[in-house]
Amino acid sequence: MTAQLHCFGESGHSYKVALMMQLTGHPWQPVFVDFFSGAMRGADYRALNEMGEAPVYVEDGLTLAQSGVILLHLAERTGRFMDGDRSEILRWLFWDNHKGSSQFGTLRFLMNFLPPEKRPAEVIAWLQGRCKAALKTLDGHLAGRDWLAGDRPTIADLSCCSYLYYPEPFGFDRGEWPRIDAWLDRIQALPGWKHPYDLMPGNPADRAAKEDA
Amino acid sequence: MTAQLHCFGESGHSYKVALMMQLTGHPWQPVFVDFFSGAMRGADYRALNEMGEAPVYVEDGLTLAQSGVILLHLAERTGRFMDGDRSEILRWLFWDNHKGSSQFGTLRFLMNFLPPEKRPAEVIAWLQGRCKAALKTLDGHLAGRDWLAGDRPTIADLSCCSYLYYPEPFGFDRGEWPRIDAWLDRIQALPGWKHPYDLMPGNPADRAAKEDA
Repeated sequence: MTAQLHCFGESGHSYKVALMMQLTGHPWQPVFVDFFSGAMRGADYRALNEMGEAPVYVEDGLTLAQSGVILLHLAERTGRFMDGDRSEILRWLFWDNHKGSSQFGTLRFLMNFLPPEKRPAEVIAWLQGRCKAALKTLDGHLAGRDWLAGDRPTIADLSCCSYLYYPEPFGFDRGEWPRIDAWLDRIQALPGWKHPYDLMPGNPADRAAKEDA
Repeated sequence: MTAQLHCFGESGHSYKVALMMQLTGHPWQPVFVDFFSGAMRGADYRALNEMGEAPVYVEDGLTLAQSGVILLHLAERTGRFMDGDRSEILRWLFWDNHKGSSQFGTLRFLMNFLPPEKRPAEVIAWLQGRCKAALKTLDGHLAGRDWLAGDRPTIADLSCCSYLYYPEPFGFDRGEWPRIDAWLDRIQALPGWKHPYDLMPGNPADRAAKEDA
């Protein structure tokens, strides 16, 4: 059966899972979540995911939420992107949920997807400091390493990279972090890699076009 | 061998692991991390944990960081607090790292452990809104349930409960959340349960006494 992924282009958490299915050739189709119209706040979406988040993965009667859980499920099911010590892979998945993507995604949202007059300057400055500390941890770990956990790419890489491919500014400039830049290049070079806006429906350009129409 | 846990009383992330070892009778001893004197920012601590966080668990030559990883390791090693669907247990562990403890702990820090003149009012208000949304998710899930994942207490409960036992105010009042309150009571009733300040070295009262001396 074909997996369904409830997702939208701007969601880096969705992208982790979409990328995993893309790279492993796992059959899937996106189900567009209209986040920017408030779809995730409705009762229907809460019935699908009480945590009110994307992505949600549905396949063969199994419904899973939380990208870390879905990545682990797909890695075990496909036997891919799991070469290495499981604790080490999970260490980066948890770090990513706590200090990485969680903060990158939130900061990017506040800086780009809120109306300019509603962007909270003090919160943005505070989050920028925290994101910089997280990037420093990631960068330090990549010294002398090609991949985050072990000698091959794993779901740890697919999880931690996600928000770092988006074009909207949130204080991350690949040029300032050569080790992270080279690591993102390595992931991009994996056969089949696609950018989030080429892999999932919905992106800022589409929304701008709709608003203009 | 006796496990060593690098931890300090105020660290809810450390408490999750300390509580798991306490409830399972796993032999352990704390190694005090003097967070408030900046111990975690030093090169020595970074050599132990490049992520610069507590807790760190050391046993039989194995060093693990990230409470989620350590909890899963201990659950599999002891065969305890893992009754139920693994994906469902991990779902709450990831949620806790992303939306639960990560935000509760940060908000509590900003509101209590920074000098009053350094507390960022706008950040605190913003985080309070996010913490309230997280508590609502937790509370909603506990409707008609005794435990977060399945019919018995698991590491999901031990992870998500941690910051909710601390006395320092951060906008969480047990009286306002009867289902969370009852769930915390159930965890407290598990044989051997101890409060974080009774289980790990370091607490605000100790620090105040030292400053007065």
